[in-house]
Amino acid sequence: MRVGVFGASGYVGGELLRLLLSHPKVEVTAATSNTYAGEYIYRVHPNLRGQTTLRFIKSDPEKVSSLCDILFVATPHGVSSKFIPSLLETGIKIIDLSADFRLKNPKDYEKWYGWSHNSPETLEKSVYGLPELHREEIKKAQLVAVPGCMAAAGILALAPIVKSGKIDVDKIVIDFKVGSSGAGVKPSISTHHAEHYSIVRPYKPIGHRHTAEIEQELSLLCNRRVVISMSAHAVNMVRGILSTCHTFLNEPVTSAEVWRIYRELYSGEPFIRFVRDVKGLYKYPDPKIVVGSNYCDIGFELDEHAGRLVILSAIDNLMKGAAGTAVQDMNIMCNWDEREGLRYLTPHPI
Amino acid sequence: MRVGVFGASGYVGGELLRLLLSHPKVEVTAATSNTYAGEYIYRVHPNLRGQTTLRFIKSDPEKVSSLCDILFVATPHGVSSKFIPSLLETGIKIIDLSADFRLKNPKDYEKWYGWSHNSPETLEKSVYGLPELHREEIKKAQLVAVPGCMAAAGILALAPIVKSGKIDVDKIVIDFKVGSSGAGVKPSISTHHAEHYSIVRPYKPIGHRHTAEIEQELSLLCNRRVVISMSAHAVNMVRGILSTCHTFLNEPVTSAEVWRIYRELYSGEPFIRFVRDVKGLYKYPDPKIVVGSNYCDIGFELDEHAGRLVILSAIDNLMKGAAGTAVQDMNIMCNWDEREGLRYLTPHPI
Amino acid sequence: MRVGVFGASGYVGGELLRLLLSHPKVEVTAATSNTYAGEYIYRVHPNLRGQTTLRFIKSDPEKVSSLCDILFVATPHGVSSKFIPSLLETGIKIIDLSADFRLKNPKDYEKWYGWSHNSPETLEKSVYGLPELHREEIKKAQLVAVPGCMAAAGILALAPIVKSGKIDVDKIVIDFKVGSSGAGVKPSISTHHAEHYSIVRPYKPIGHRHTAEIEQELSLLCNRRVVISMSAHAVNMVRGILSTCHTFLNEPVTSAEVWRIYRELYSGEPFIRFVRDVKGLYKYPDPKIVVGSNYCDIGFELDEHAGRLVILSAIDNLMKGAAGTAVQDMNIMCNWDEREGLRYLTPHPI
Amino acid sequence: MRVGVFGASGYVGGELLRLLLSHPKVEVTAATSNTYAGEYIYRVHPNLRGQTTLRFIKSDPEKVSSLCDILFVATPHGVSSKFIPSLLETGIKIIDLSADFRLKNPKDYEKWYGWSHNSPETLEKSVYGLPELHREEIKKAQLVAVPGCMAAAGILALAPIVKSGKIDVDKIVIDFKVGSSGAGVKPSISTHHAEHYSIVRPYKPIGHRHTAEIEQELSLLCNRRVVISMSAHAVNMVRGILSTCHTFLNEPVTSAEVWRIYRELYSGEPFIRFVRDVKGLYKYPDPKIVVGSNYCDIGFELDEHAGRLVILSAIDNLMKGAAGTAVQDMNIMCNWDEREGLRYLTPHPI
Repeated sequence: MRVGVFGASGYVGGELLRLLLSHPKVEVTAATSNTYAGEYIYRVHPNLRGQTTLRFIKSDPEKVSSLCDILFVATPHGVSSKFIPSLLETGIKIIDLSADFRLKNPKDYEKWYGWSHNSPETLEKSVYGLPELHREEIKKAQLVAVPGCMAAAGILALAPIVKSGKIDVDKIVIDFKVGSSGAGVKPSISTHHAEHYSIVRPYKPIGHRHTAEIEQELSLLCNRRVVISMSAHAVNMVRGILSTCHTFLNEPVTSAEVWRIYRELYSGEPFIRFVRDVKGLYKYPDPKIVVGSNYCDIGFELDEHAGRLVILSAIDNLMKGAAGTAVQDMNIMCNWDEREGLRYLTPHPI
Repeated sequence: MRVGVFGASGYVGGELLRLLLSHPKVEVTAATSNTYAGEYIYRVHPNLRGQTTLRFIKSDPEKVSSLCDILFVATPHGVSSKFIPSLLETGIKIIDLSADFRLKNPKDYEKWYGWSHNSPETLEKSVYGLPELHREEIKKAQLVAVPGCMAAAGILALAPIVKSGKIDVDKIVIDFKVGSSGAGVKPSISTHHAEHYSIVRPYKPIGHRHTAEIEQELSLLCNRRVVISMSAHAVNMVRGILSTCHTFLNEPVTSAEVWRIYRELYSGEPFIRFVRDVKGLYKYPDPKIVVGSNYCDIGFELDEHAGRLVILSAIDNLMKGAAGTAVQDMNIMCNWDEREGLRYLTPHPI
Repeated sequence: MRVGVFGASGYVGGELLRLLLSHPKVEVTAATSNTYAGEYIYRVHPNLRGQTTLRFIKSDPEKVSSLCDILFVATPHGVSSKFIPSLLETGIKIIDLSADFRLKNPKDYEKWYGWSHNSPETLEKSVYGLPELHREEIKKAQLVAVPGCMAAAGILALAPIVKSGKIDVDKIVIDFKVGSSGAGVKPSISTHHAEHYSIVRPYKPIGHRHTAEIEQELSLLCNRRVVISMSAHAVNMVRGILSTCHTFLNEPVTSAEVWRIYRELYSGEPFIRFVRDVKGLYKYPDPKIVVGSNYCDIGFELDEHAGRLVILSAIDNLMKGAAGTAVQDMNIMCNWDEREGLRYLTPHPI
Repeated sequence: MRVGVFGASGYVGGELLRLLLSHPKVEVTAATSNTYAGEYIYRVHPNLRGQTTLRFIKSDPEKVSSLCDILFVATPHGVSSKFIPSLLETGIKIIDLSADFRLKNPKDYEKWYGWSHNSPETLEKSVYGLPELHREEIKKAQLVAVPGCMAAAGILALAPIVKSGKIDVDKIVIDFKVGSSGAGVKPSISTHHAEHYSIVRPYKPIGHRHTAEIEQELSLLCNRRVVISMSAHAVNMVRGILSTCHTFLNEPVTSAEVWRIYRELYSGEPFIRFVRDVKGLYKYPDPKIVVGSNYCDIGFELDEHAGRLVILSAIDNLMKGAAGTAVQDMNIMCNWDEREGLRYLTPHPI
């Protein structure tokens, strides 16, 4: 299978290239970047030195569509909606990693992103690419919208318990802690090392756009409007997201019940790992343990004192939060083993 | 004034020595450590090299009481309650930085610390040493119990709004992020650099002991039982605490009202700084900006979407969270300018 | 092929398990640890959660020898020399990652390690397991001694130029910068996060033991005594070594000549990468780019001003500096593709 | 005394403001920045929030000269030489922190900086502002050129031993490790947190400009041409420089002799600290211990094996490497206690 990456010079693009270059079922036939067209890929992604002689080509959708059967799109938000609708007519399968086709309700783009969507009809066709919730739809999709990185972590942490009806869905707090790679490859004062080192910066205490995705998916699961209280913090690491979900129970539950609720929804999932141990340093999820892997580690703790259930999830924002899920989606669309190309074990310590 | 530090080889003890050695009104006459008795202080606290020729002496309460007028106690929890009650009879003033005299209700020690307090009558005499709430009592106290580091950050963030009655005091979430110095000087696998680097470790998602202090102080302020939902995370920095307080409003409020509520309680406070700017990288509190200082930076954001008020506070856990507040308490007890010895400006970037 | 890891609870042991569990040609049949005998492996190596149900067994050489055909030994220095000589009589192949069989001259153990070697005759049989210099001997070896982490980085950087005779071999400075995982899994004050964060600690400015290995191997290459001026610094990262080799030229050389000298010795080497680019952020070797990989990246720069040739090499200390080279040695001993089990591409950024 | 900072929005400018705002003998009357003119200073330097209501003004030399008696200039290299020569005619005292007046030989600007100096006659008047070597000249100077950050660390480490004639001055290796604040406030891909975290980047293995200053000052001390082999590495910290100086002895010396040589030159120096202990974690210099302070910590070790003397020095690049030395120079020029405004003790751990 010939695959291409449109917008391949950023961090998500680089991670896609890393995964696809060692994927046994595909051949990378195109990697685009207007800035670096003509340049060797390893100049921009130094980890790929010695792995490929591929060079970037210009970001021309038509040209690229002739070079590949599946196209990954990793452009900034607001870009891919301009060319994907017409590109789909060529029959090419597209996995979009931007936000442009994630939300079902066009009005949500106005509310959360501040622009009107130009192709509401494509939104209807698009599938929200979280395998754990939409596997069957992904199998048949021509256009898959990969979830936002924090959205993926938050939805996976909350889906079972929201579906179960055990918690107050009006007061769900998600306190995210995110690594610097989530800010992308473009330098700015906020990601300047001297300013980002040692920080715990509450960069988006309210109003983060991923709220929209999380509410959309969780509301679907429980058939009522879910309200998410989301705050995002930047911390001193490069990769990873920890989501700490503070939820309030409608009625007391036992740990065993919570276990059952989570196992039920995630039974057989290749990339969900339950992490809740009686001992050991990593008895709860921690992003450090999933760097470079596609796992979403999930754990929880019941707080009887406050009638609270704390659910924790950890992912690598560039993997399960972007490129890893995208490759998992491709594997599903192609009817391959979902783990293909995603079997790497995180080194420890790292 | 002659001052001593009992238990001076840990991080809190070291920070006390740093502050007291450059405090214009006091002379350090004793620094105790059983492990390092006889050793130069700078061997254990390398930043004090060239500043003092003081050596550690044995941790003998009686001996120490004869050497100083004010004694700072920085021993592990459960130690100082064994000797402070009798030591008080000598008339010495004591500023205790452990948890042994913070809680008013002896039963709280059983519930949260798992031991019975041996001197409930001393608990009654002890003053909770948070100047912003108990300045007048501190002035007259013989025994002051310095707040726990996270408790200080949490209480200062929440006191005004809890007192105002504007929020639901049954569902207050405090999501703490803490630097590694908070774990103390004793090495363990959890603070081993290779295991602590790049982490966001939810080390105490429920059941943290500081819950007791926070509930005690906030309940006092609003005359009803406050329930705190506290989770503590270790992050990749050495100093600092960020508290993200997620609270739900009983009724809509405006930003101006919140401002007024906070200014009212903290008017004239020398170490409270409001940080809520319209622009700039540090428009919210961040621990990076208070390293080595005694400030508690406080900010907030109103989330209309969820009916939530997010309050943020940042402190240096060894300063406003321990030694800084202890020195501020001493200044109050001695009727000196509260800022004496605490005027240092954090370097930036750091 | 059945393989075992003796001393599997440390960082090198964990890295061996990670590599061997995903190696297509071997089955891990034993992992020993006296401390953790009976415990699941993932409790100690959290990255292996979900990968294996293996448990640690006691560190009994005889028992282990019956369970495997190839044994990796990752015990502290001074341990393996006690049991390897007799174990070899069972015909088992052994890859030792400690220092016990690296030096050819028994007197060097007295000088650099402070103890007398108990089996000089085994030293003669042992092969220094650096594939780039001893591939043919490794093929036929029963006992391979994997190089020390810094030694591997230093020797690979210097071997070609020392062999060429172009530099003054009496004045070779190697300035090493090493990550904290190099200090092993045992906590101590020197690796306590609060004390190790942000450091550049010159922990061994003179007298480092790896000097002996480096001098042994480089002297062999040029048939005269080489003197190494080695200094080791601990820096704020977990994995990786950068060696900066400052050498003085006997006569002027051109860049082209240096290139030729390096290409000649390393032509066809699967894990040597030359990194010396005209542009780009990573135009010289950097440990960040080889985390989790078995590459040794090598670059250089000619300093005409001072008659100096600076050679740079970067490795992952737990991979090319330990477990990676050990697996490469196994692949050579078994006549498999040298890259088997070592093909993973470092994620970037990390 | 009225003082101003010309070019006050960068990291050196910010550090000058921090020091000068708490200096008991001066009043800050001007802080210039064309980019931020009109903006409050604390918006750019968040650590100064609550300390001053000063705002930036335009960078107009004439205007500024009327506002202050002493002017600190912290502009990029190549800027201050354009206006300082004429500004000096107004009688104002100037402390320049750029490279424009450090080198005595105009040809060195062509060789190392690539431009011709427009005012060789001002170079003659300018004093190289390293108090330990030029105190008497600084006292009488109108124009002082503060040393480059690495130059300061290197010269202070080497001055005594070079002066003594004990080492080979043709083969002096200085291997520098530098924090990210040394790269200045302007974001770029090389200081992007995701790219700078965990690095040991040999960003300037040869050809660093500070070589010129170091050679100039050391050659003066020993009356012959000294050749420096300098390599600079960026590491994962914000503040600090460690210089590891590898020197080769002309003849054997004892530790006692080296001690004597160093004590002789630095006797009574308020900001030189000798760090060479028999035990303890910080028995050698480490930048972590001097953050925010004006100390230069110096230590050494004799390597008999290689006939080498390793000298180590650690400074804060923004303090002893820039703003701290500048304030020390001002104190000398004004005949004040040299330590005025520079007494702060580094917190530990940090």
